Amino acid sequence: MSKLVISQKIKLAVKNGHGCVRIRVGNVTIGCDQIVVMAGPCSVESREQVLETARIVKAAGGHILRGGAFKPRTLPYSFQGLGEEGLKILAEARDETGLPIVTEVMAPEDVELVESYADILQIGARNMQNFTLLKRVGRAVKPVMLKRGMSATIEEWLGCAEYILNEGNPNVILCERGIRTYETITRNTLDVSAVPVIKQLSDLPVVIDPSHGTGIRSLVAPMAKAGVAAGADGLIIEVHPHPEKALSDGDQSLHPPEFADLMRELAPIVGAVGKRL
Amino acid sequence: MSKLVISQKIKLAVKNGHGCVRIRVGNVTIGCDQIVVMAGPCSVESREQVLETARIVKAAGGHILRGGAFKPRTLPYSFQGLGEEGLKILAEARDETGLPIVTEVMAPEDVELVESYADILQIGARNMQNFTLLKRVGRAVKPVMLKRGMSATIEEWLGCAEYILNEGNPNVILCERGIRTYETITRNTLDVSAVPVIKQLSDLPVVIDPSHGTGIRSLVAPMAKAGVAAGADGLIIEVHPHPEKALSDGDQSLHPPEFADLMRELAPIVGAVGKRL
Amino acid sequence: MSKLVISQKIKLAVKNGHGCVRIRVGNVTIGCDQIVVMAGPCSVESREQVLETARIVKAAGGHILRGGAFKPRTLPYSFQGLGEEGLKILAEARDETGLPIVTEVMAPEDVELVESYADILQIGARNMQNFTLLKRVGRAVKPVMLKRGMSATIEEWLGCAEYILNEGNPNVILCERGIRTYETITRNTLDVSAVPVIKQLSDLPVVIDPSHGTGIRSLVAPMAKAGVAAGADGLIIEVHPHPEKALSDGDQSLHPPEFADLMRELAPIVGAVGKRL
Amino acid sequence: MSKLVISQKIKLAVKNGHGCVRIRVGNVTIGCDQIVVMAGPCSVESREQVLETARIVKAAGGHILRGGAFKPRTLPYSFQGLGEEGLKILAEARDETGLPIVTEVMAPEDVELVESYADILQIGARNMQNFTLLKRVGRAVKPVMLKRGMSATIEEWLGCAEYILNEGNPNVILCERGIRTYETITRNTLDVSAVPVIKQLSDLPVVIDPSHGTGIRSLVAPMAKAGVAAGADGLIIEVHPHPEKALSDGDQSLHPPEFADLMRELAPIVGAVGKRL
Repeated sequence: MSKLVISQKIKLAVKNGHGCVRIRVGNVTIGCDQIVVMAGPCSVESREQVLETARIVKAAGGHILRGGAFKPRTLPYSFQGLGEEGLKILAEARDETGLPIVTEVMAPEDVELVESYADILQIGARNMQNFTLLKRVGRAVKPVMLKRGMSATIEEWLGCAEYILNEGNPNVILCERGIRTYETITRNTLDVSAVPVIKQLSDLPVVIDPSHGTGIRSLVAPMAKAGVAAGADGLIIEVHPHPEKALSDGDQSLHPPEFADLMRELAPIVGAVGKRL
Repeated sequence: MSKLVISQKIKLAVKNGHGCVRIRVGNVTIGCDQIVVMAGPCSVESREQVLETARIVKAAGGHILRGGAFKPRTLPYSFQGLGEEGLKILAEARDETGLPIVTEVMAPEDVELVESYADILQIGARNMQNFTLLKRVGRAVKPVMLKRGMSATIEEWLGCAEYILNEGNPNVILCERGIRTYETITRNTLDVSAVPVIKQLSDLPVVIDPSHGTGIRSLVAPMAKAGVAAGADGLIIEVHPHPEKALSDGDQSLHPPEFADLMRELAPIVGAVGKRL
Repeated sequence: MSKLVISQKIKLAVKNGHGCVRIRVGNVTIGCDQIVVMAGPCSVESREQVLETARIVKAAGGHILRGGAFKPRTLPYSFQGLGEEGLKILAEARDETGLPIVTEVMAPEDVELVESYADILQIGARNMQNFTLLKRVGRAVKPVMLKRGMSATIEEWLGCAEYILNEGNPNVILCERGIRTYETITRNTLDVSAVPVIKQLSDLPVVIDPSHGTGIRSLVAPMAKAGVAAGADGLIIEVHPHPEKALSDGDQSLHPPEFADLMRELAPIVGAVGKRL
Repeated sequence: MSKLVISQKIKLAVKNGHGCVRIRVGNVTIGCDQIVVMAGPCSVESREQVLETARIVKAAGGHILRGGAFKPRTLPYSFQGLGEEGLKILAEARDETGLPIVTEVMAPEDVELVESYADILQIGARNMQNFTLLKRVGRAVKPVMLKRGMSATIEEWLGCAEYILNEGNPNVILCERGIRTYETITRNTLDVSAVPVIKQLSDLPVVIDPSHGTGIRSLVAPMAKAGVAAGADGLIIEVHPHPEKALSDGDQSLHPPEFADLMRELAPIVGAVGKRL
């Protein structure tokens, strides 16, 4: 067929005639003709690391600081994040730089705590269909960034947004972070086509994560540009002051000068699609 | 390479020289040379439906009653399960038939409740990497059946078993329920090869779910036999007194006579691999 | 849906009321209640290697000798097979042991040559949709074994059988050899469920290849049993007198005693599904 | 790892210090800082259809005319293309418009014929590992456009380019046309990340096919832009004067005004990445 078709039971996450959803976070606007760049380390490792990264992100023109305090790791023996201590560090970085904070929440019982520090609540790919958690953040006040599950269809992903919206939280940002395929040279296969599919089906903003989406530093910039050219509303990018020392995802984290270069190179692409950076 | 290799950091879920793990649930033994058959409806819909199914399962020689009281559904508007009321119905069916109960728990805060009724706690595919939930059932007394995530590698799956074992619960049953592939004629692709891979890497029992694994009634029996022939320790099968009226998964639920036929046809396969039914 | 549905344009490869197709190759019958075992090396490497393997296959009760003279290799610098010299060696092994020969043909212009030596023409996975080749073997006299493409749907696979049947060759054997998925611990994911799907849709015999399907020696026997239990009409298995010295696929080739063990262990499974070995 | 690693046996298809490969076809240059747009119908259906499309492509600024005379179709009963008659029509369109022709060749024995009319020989996705065909076009004089197989890894794809280069034909253009994944809303998943991967590993030009890559008309323009932003050297796009009447792929073919719009919208993206259209 030549049209995009999804279940007619999805009512809230689809286009409803009111136009694009505009989400306000501090003095940052997400959605519509504004490109938003979220950047920062995969994990919050220390006060120094986060403050240094926040300054780098701010100086290069980034809009929101990312960083994980609660980390979903494949094995129980890996670094699991600093927890509330990490949230406090993120809040301090916000106080200094003015950058709002996006950070992951992994369990319903942590939502109240995370919400007391964060500006945007991130639902990770592994929890996309953790429906208890979705319902809980659907009753939160803060916006939610919902990552696509590792092998979720776009329809399932919108179904998960529906769970959040249906509880009353209208502020959902979708994040394409790569899907699992047979290809092994990249960590995941970034499904850039999910961007125009979402833009045609839904009014919700959609950002892409070229860091997890590729797993390889040298692919982050070209895929960030591809995402914006395809119509994405923003990017979430891993930046680390010393990627080779990162406790997680060092291979896909940009060095600070690479992030600054990317911000400069993005500008003409953003202009070419008629948006603002 | 000709050998199966996984991360050396996985210590508890792998073979450790003590031989196969034998798990006792009521008067049923899971693991080693015993084939266990868990059967019942996808969802607990009513007292009558569950009691009728329990009698059918018992009469045909099944060992454990399955049925969902908390249902993870793609959309918030679908039937979400009867909750505690459903657990009470399952317990009544156990009282009448003597069949132990396996049922899903979806959230850490529900573990205590579910454990007070169920004999085995099921972690569904969508929650395989819900690490908060894994840690919580790792502190439960009851055994845990851990379904493989929709696109989880076998190594990631064992990593999730490790989360449970690492909290002190030694009784983990693995369940292969089909993985997501490009093939569309079946609902999932049942990865039968996961069975011998697990048997060669781990001492934990592994069962297969040919109902979710195929999504089509007529494929359940041949795939159940394939699983046993490949070395599985058991099966989990959807049976419904009236599949055409089921609130979920009717297309893959066996009619009662089909289940009885399957139990009869399984017997020689079980014998051929030197096990007991 | 609860039924298997494929394109109604497929007319010849589907059930047509005449019952299972029985294919005669020398004194061997393929299809219906007979299990056929094809075995031998991946590549024809030398006269000694093939004759030794043929004797091993014959002594253990195998029915057909496999071996590649034309080899589709990922890189042009890998061993490409002995060509006609390899075909002559296979024919000599048939003369000595009485085992019919199955071997791959890669190009339309080679069909006449390969057919002059072989008893069954194999179309490899990479050539499943080489339609020019399919039409050519559809005009051959010898039966054709059509391997499923690496990421072919079952419907596409039957569409390829249709190409052969439509040219007038009624003797098509389907071979499931594993599909490409995200799982990396096995070389491919053997789609055992393809067996009952094919049996329910088509009258053509279907065999499985647990050697390519898993890529790992220790998984061949359990998956061979699984295939037979699921209803397969036969197996194609790699056996090599010295797997560690094989020019291709050594890691998945059985040692001769392993093949003899497998033949013994298969017998009760074959009996359990009411067939003959 | 943070680096892209492939087999060291691939010698010709990888970077070798001479910089980007520049391929001349008539007065068109492919590769380096030039973006090339190939456009036209999926199938050559009639003289009128092709001439009309060629004029549209030319007027909108396209560089090369595409169109299939030999069509690989899933079933033998579908339109198989006009064969040599189709090649003659394409040649007439070139004579009138000056646009060079790219068209598929499906069999070794057709290479001489197709080469006598076409300017670029296309190897389709289904034939990517038809090694006999690859060797034959490796001995052709005309450049070859090699489409990535439906589930080929990037390494396997480069291995196929190696087969062509190793026979002496230095002019290989790679074409990413979407890979097969579990997602069903799009026909394939266009792997845009293959573009920067290829640019970092190889000197060969790489183009993307957003028509087959998505299967949906409304996604062609955003994905074309994404491909160029990611660094592709060009695009191959299906355009049809009357898509609703097309004998194949109508759903993904652009209407003429959509193609003209796309050419206009591409210009600023091309400029943003420092190239020429």
